[in-house]
Amino acid sequence: MPDPARLDAFPTPSDSPFVVEHIAEEFTSVCPVTGHPDFGSITIRFEPRPGSAGGTCVELKSLKLYLQSFRNEGIYYEAVTNQIRDDLAALMDPSWLLVRSDWRGRGGIRSTIRATSGQVPINWQD
Amino acid sequence: MPDPARLDAFPTPSDSPFVVEHIAEEFTSVCPVTGHPDFGSITIRFEPRPGSAGGTCVELKSLKLYLQSFRNEGIYYEAVTNQIRDDLAALMDPSWLLVRSDWRGRGGIRSTIRATSGQVPINWQD
Amino acid sequence: MPDPARLDAFPTPSDSPFVVEHIAEEFTSVCPVTGHPDFGSITIRFEPRPGSAGGTCVELKSLKLYLQSFRNEGIYYEAVTNQIRDDLAALMDPSWLLVRSDWRGRGGIRSTIRATSGQVPINWQD
Amino acid sequence: MPDPARLDAFPTPSDSPFVVEHIAEEFTSVCPVTGHPDFGSITIRFEPRPGSAGGTCVELKSLKLYLQSFRNEGIYYEAVTNQIRDDLAALMDPSWLLVRSDWRGRGGIRSTIRATSGQVPINWQD
Amino acid sequence: MPDPARLDAFPTPSDSPFVVEHIAEEFTSVCPVTGHPDFGSITIRFEPRPGSAGGTCVELKSLKLYLQSFRNEGIYYEAVTNQIRDDLAALMDPSWLLVRSDWRGRGGIRSTIRATSGQVPINWQD
Amino acid sequence: MPDPARLDAFPTPSDSPFVVEHIAEEFTSVCPVTGHPDFGSITIRFEPRPGSAGGTCVELKSLKLYLQSFRNEGIYYEAVTNQIRDDLAALMDPSWLLVRSDWRGRGGIRSTIRATSGQVPINWQD
Amino acid sequence: MPDPARLDAFPTPSDSPFVVEHIAEEFTSVCPVTGHPDFGSITIRFEPRPGSAGGTCVELKSLKLYLQSFRNEGIYYEAVTNQIRDDLAALMDPSWLLVRSDWRGRGGIRSTIRATSGQVPINWQD
Amino acid sequence: MPDPARLDAFPTPSDSPFVVEHIAEEFTSVCPVTGHPDFGSITIRFEPRPGSAGGTCVELKSLKLYLQSFRNEGIYYEAVTNQIRDDLAALMDPSWLLVRSDWRGRGGIRSTIRATSGQVPINWQD
Amino acid sequence: MPDPARLDAFPTPSDSPFVVEHIAEEFTSVCPVTGHPDFGSITIRFEPRPGSAGGTCVELKSLKLYLQSFRNEGIYYEAVTNQIRDDLAALMDPSWLLVRSDWRGRGGIRSTIRATSGQVPINWQD
Amino acid sequence: MPDPARLDAFPTPSDSPFVVEHIAEEFTSVCPVTGHPDFGSITIRFEPRPGSAGGTCVELKSLKLYLQSFRNEGIYYEAVTNQIRDDLAALMDPSWLLVRSDWRGRGGIRSTIRATSGQVPINWQD
Repeated sequence: MPDPARLDAFPTPSDSPFVVEHIAEEFTSVCPVTGHPDFGSITIRFEPRPGSAGGTCVELKSLKLYLQSFRNEGIYYEAVTNQIRDDLAALMDPSWLLVRSDWRGRGGIRSTIRATSGQVPINWQD
Repeated sequence: MPDPARLDAFPTPSDSPFVVEHIAEEFTSVCPVTGHPDFGSITIRFEPRPGSAGGTCVELKSLKLYLQSFRNEGIYYEAVTNQIRDDLAALMDPSWLLVRSDWRGRGGIRSTIRATSGQVPINWQD
Repeated sequence: MPDPARLDAFPTPSDSPFVVEHIAEEFTSVCPVTGHPDFGSITIRFEPRPGSAGGTCVELKSLKLYLQSFRNEGIYYEAVTNQIRDDLAALMDPSWLLVRSDWRGRGGIRSTIRATSGQVPINWQD
Repeated sequence: MPDPARLDAFPTPSDSPFVVEHIAEEFTSVCPVTGHPDFGSITIRFEPRPGSAGGTCVELKSLKLYLQSFRNEGIYYEAVTNQIRDDLAALMDPSWLLVRSDWRGRGGIRSTIRATSGQVPINWQD
Repeated sequence: MPDPARLDAFPTPSDSPFVVEHIAEEFTSVCPVTGHPDFGSITIRFEPRPGSAGGTCVELKSLKLYLQSFRNEGIYYEAVTNQIRDDLAALMDPSWLLVRSDWRGRGGIRSTIRATSGQVPINWQD
Repeated sequence: MPDPARLDAFPTPSDSPFVVEHIAEEFTSVCPVTGHPDFGSITIRFEPRPGSAGGTCVELKSLKLYLQSFRNEGIYYEAVTNQIRDDLAALMDPSWLLVRSDWRGRGGIRSTIRATSGQVPINWQD
Repeated sequence: MPDPARLDAFPTPSDSPFVVEHIAEEFTSVCPVTGHPDFGSITIRFEPRPGSAGGTCVELKSLKLYLQSFRNEGIYYEAVTNQIRDDLAALMDPSWLLVRSDWRGRGGIRSTIRATSGQVPINWQD
Repeated sequence: MPDPARLDAFPTPSDSPFVVEHIAEEFTSVCPVTGHPDFGSITIRFEPRPGSAGGTCVELKSLKLYLQSFRNEGIYYEAVTNQIRDDLAALMDPSWLLVRSDWRGRGGIRSTIRATSGQVPINWQD
Repeated sequence: MPDPARLDAFPTPSDSPFVVEHIAEEFTSVCPVTGHPDFGSITIRFEPRPGSAGGTCVELKSLKLYLQSFRNEGIYYEAVTNQIRDDLAALMDPSWLLVRSDWRGRGGIRSTIRATSGQVPINWQD
Repeated sequence: MPDPARLDAFPTPSDSPFVVEHIAEEFTSVCPVTGHPDFGSITIRFEPRPGSAGGTCVELKSLKLYLQSFRNEGIYYEAVTNQIRDDLAALMDPSWLLVRSDWRGRGGIRSTIRATSGQVPINWQD
């Protein structure tokens, strides 16, 4: 089951502004109603707090193991997205965080959910 | 015929901001003039009201059945789009709603209709 | 329901070899088990018999109306494909005929069915 | 020759905001200098005035016939675009209108012309 | 664990030649060495024996459930592919069968495995 | 109207084997039934006879003017394709000739016609 | 060598706002250091001054000849882009001008240079 | 090891505004934990200070050699991106600088890091 | 330096025919003349000998380490390709082996080298 | 002017079969009639004779300089292609040689010319 204890972070290596994006294209969980597997990708985008202010960044391998912990969990699209947003916000307390899930679809309907925390940074461009 | 009674909603599972998008690529209705079928896709994008404020989100399977109810209806592009916008706004009363229909075209002309309700949220960003 | 009587043909306009391909990207029928609509495209490829030998080619508008007649028919992928092959073979008695259906998928599985009649012509290339 | 009398409009079917886009990918006219044909696509995007304020939308079949009337006209890219903008603005008096022509190119140079009328609506997004 | 008992077949609905292709894009199993999940797609292509000769075709829903039974199985790419080929050949005894697995890759290397049974039919084209 | 007299040819510049392909993406004619314009592309592929055997190749500018002469002609897809094949075969008497027309479609059906003369050369690959 | 005298302009044919874009995909000049040819495309985008205010637009054939005049010139990416901007600004004195060069790359690095004159018009929107 | 001394700059050749973008698609460094190579592309985008104000632009060949100096360096994604940003900002002191690294991914997760210096120029528009 | 001793193999897990393909998209070596890095992808495709005949398949992780051993080797395109073919043929003695290298290019020229061992199997199809 | 003396070759480094392909995407020459530049890409594919039989392969940098020597030559598409085939056949006397030129087009017509020498090798397979 989803396990935020698997998440690790390291101190932000700079005080100058930067934005990190991780895209996990091999995400799977289980539909809580039908029991059939759901497949999608999870995009995580954030601006860490500066290192001198105690900011941290999520560590990549721990993120992978955390996302794998949803594999056999029965959980809705919206809940997956909100939980990842909440777990990462609790871990890093970033200046800005966006979690986006893109699902391959069921019954001819594809879905995307985006959950945010904080304001989009002024320097975020293309 | 189009039947909004098929639509169900569930309580918004969070008070933090998030946006939902559903894309139904297998939509069909009938041209009211020629009787020939029209094919297109319907994109529905909304920010629900917070759960603590009584906000709701449309349920996915009910949305599928609702969209299938247009299958043999003779109805114009503009009317399809405005009706879906009105039916979903009545169901959820969301902070923001955009309904977009993309039609495969007739006589060498492809068409897209977008109908909105409410203001685009400040946090809506690619 | 599927209605081969809607199909018309016209005499092959040449005795030199040529091959015709029609791709109908807006095909829909109904799953006989679940009652949900299926969406796909139908490709029809044939070499008509020479005009001087009484060969004929399917007329395009009649083909469109024939394919629309499947719209509310409950019928399997394999049966759709075999029936179109049989109806067109009966209409034109072509030197070669291939009918291919590409379905958008159900439950995460996309399908393609190909049914043939006669031998691929030696000149069919690229 | 270009004939705005072929254009028809129907009353805007809603007072809620919506935007219409028609893309005609099979446009052709003639270069007034060389007499060679030009090929391109015409995109028409507008926000109609509300129905209760007497707003109208261009009718799709009349638009097709109007665009076909340029077929044998010797006319420059810029003039095509400005004339369509002017004819549609006279027909509908919309809140906003953009006409864009994309030309396949001559002498290794592709061109795009955009002509507008009115202000881009605040709700126009993605 | 992989369970061929989930597979069902139905009698081939025609004696004329046809070929069936199913592409399951949402396949996942587990690496037997590292325990990390593998993701890929499985393509199944076959020419059934004629119906009058007792030929059968795999039923689509049973195929889906069979493929899902690999979800938590620790198994190599080559073994997945050979097992599916063997299980389907045992089920249908088809004239020709090709099973192809395309894996998203590990350590910067993407892999594809193809296993066959029988000879490619003369009419298999494009 | 279509005018083969516009076609010119020049002597094949080599006795070694080569194949020429011209793709005219801006072709238009008129539907003889509805009077609406048809749009498509014409592909011409041939192996000329050797220069020392009196072989010739179609000249590019004359080909362009010849294809433009169909602009206001009411003519079926099949007739366009067969006529171009016949006119070019009469002009060049090539070892091999393929004429392929790809039409943008009417009523949701796209079409391709291929007409040939002579045998595909053994060296024609990829 | 680059020759702005080849450039011609014609009076802006309207007082309503419009924007012109020309993309020349077949541009070549020479690296002043190595003598090897550089290949790229040049995009020119401008809003002309209104016709009643003496505004002009660059003529397409003269633009082609002007761009060809760089063919054997040894010149840096940045200088090409700034010179075209300056020559076109001198010719037309437009409300807004953007010149963008996209180079195919040398040593594994692709480059893009954008030079502007004036402010982006408020109505410039995709 | 990364060597900013390899970087050269030349005086900005204009006082009018322009923006430079270099994309190095063949970047490689080494993971400091596993010792396996990382592959990605580095995008560098900047607005130089005007030439009359002492502004400079990075020279292309020196940039290539500088980027190659990371080839056998054990260094994290975030550190690569911040170091390039810092080295180029020290070299050029530009009005605006964005460094973006796109990594091909490890363990099914692709990453992008963007580091900036200064404000996006008002004229930066696609 | 290239080190075939890193390669391991495991016994072919079946006697039925199958074909394996591995694509390593992150290959790099060094040009022996200029010392600049080369980047490309290596495709390895083979039909192993049957398991009962002592056939083996290359193990994936050992293949990765073997390919990494070229990282700082000065070696030509042709030599890379022939060496990998020879090393893998010595390791597995397969029924058929194809090694293909696709290089990103130098001086505007992209290259592909294919080296083979044995005959393409009759069952190798799409 | 085209200068085959710039071409160098090196001894084939193996006696096992392999095929080489070079794609020069930045080719330009001049139309002998209009004086306007032509742009295209040149693909060269060959199987060298074995090294022990005195076989050779064209050297990459010499090929680049040879192709650049066409830059200001007025020459037809067919002549470019036949000349490169003849010059390379004279240089290497390969088992098989294919030269293919793909031209960006003039007057709306794109062209491809393929010239060959020798028979396609039995092992040439995608």
